[in-house]
Amino acid sequence: MTEFSPLVRELIEALRCLPGVGPKSAQRMALHVLQRDRDGGARLARILAEAVVNVGECRCCRILAEQALCAICASSKRDRHALCIVENPADVYALDQATDYRGLYFVLNGRLSPLDGIGPTELGLDCLEKRFCEGEIREIVLATNSTVEGEATAQFIAEMAHHNAIHVTRIAYGVPVGGELEYVDSGTLSHAFAGRREYR
Amino acid sequence: MTEFSPLVRELIEALRCLPGVGPKSAQRMALHVLQRDRDGGARLARILAEAVVNVGECRCCRILAEQALCAICASSKRDRHALCIVENPADVYALDQATDYRGLYFVLNGRLSPLDGIGPTELGLDCLEKRFCEGEIREIVLATNSTVEGEATAQFIAEMAHHNAIHVTRIAYGVPVGGELEYVDSGTLSHAFAGRREYR
Repeated sequence: MTEFSPLVRELIEALRCLPGVGPKSAQRMALHVLQRDRDGGARLARILAEAVVNVGECRCCRILAEQALCAICASSKRDRHALCIVENPADVYALDQATDYRGLYFVLNGRLSPLDGIGPTELGLDCLEKRFCEGEIREIVLATNSTVEGEATAQFIAEMAHHNAIHVTRIAYGVPVGGELEYVDSGTLSHAFAGRREYR
Repeated sequence: MTEFSPLVRELIEALRCLPGVGPKSAQRMALHVLQRDRDGGARLARILAEAVVNVGECRCCRILAEQALCAICASSKRDRHALCIVENPADVYALDQATDYRGLYFVLNGRLSPLDGIGPTELGLDCLEKRFCEGEIREIVLATNSTVEGEATAQFIAEMAHHNAIHVTRIAYGVPVGGELEYVDSGTLSHAFAGRREYR
């Protein structure tokens, strides 16, 4: 059985670090770049090398940014009394696009998961507590995912906030807009039922 | 609306040069690499930069290789009288794995397509004709795809080979093994019917 030349094989192997890329897609990507788009490949190599070195975390909200302070934290137009807490950077952009929330964010970059060695320090909860103590924040919006770990993380942060007399809210979980009850899973349905609100 | 920091945005944009990667997957890939796999990202950047510079074409069969001569062309175990002609490098590995053919290959890296400016020179057919003239090759196996352009390319090469009194075969196209007639498209069916063979 014949195989690709060593360097092509190495490239296919290296492409597998990207999420959702299996052996077949990695091969397709490698051949495409080498046969048809060497300029694009060279550009990707350059920017990727630069990004893995230079992109760090915003020292205020822990979002990915190459400056010390990200655009949101540096903005003067943001409400500095509200803080929305999310698990991932992508959640920030999703929320900011979909809602009219214009406060600040805090990115956990994960969720409490003691078995995987992810405790409060890994999520930057010590920095968060310091910010709570400083007294500028009046409301936090918990927007962690509604998984077991996400709920535990929300609970943990809520308690920290209560100690500092900060108003705590949690985004609503329930039947998705446009969803049909028949096709919604039972966990979501029971959440939606338990969380029912006064109808005006 | 807020957006990713400039460098992260550039990385997402650059990842789109990979085939099958849209805006959402590119974002997922960029965030995954920056949050969880910087080592993998650095390695990918290094190997990709090396590959786009160093991987060229085998001077004999035009397959992707960083040496002047690929492993197949350099091998002494190969039958140097048979030449299988394919459109893409991936076809070589697919055929070599699936069949017991142990001759040489020639990779066109495309197919005749005058409208896109792809003529005989772009496919290396001048080199191929030179090899035909040298007299070492006794049989060619045409394994271009069964598209209109693939057929035209096969036809073109077959005529070149006939001029040099080389035996020409074409791989069989028909109903896939395990396929059910009911679900096979009509083009394949008519191919399979026209290409029927003596049953022993």
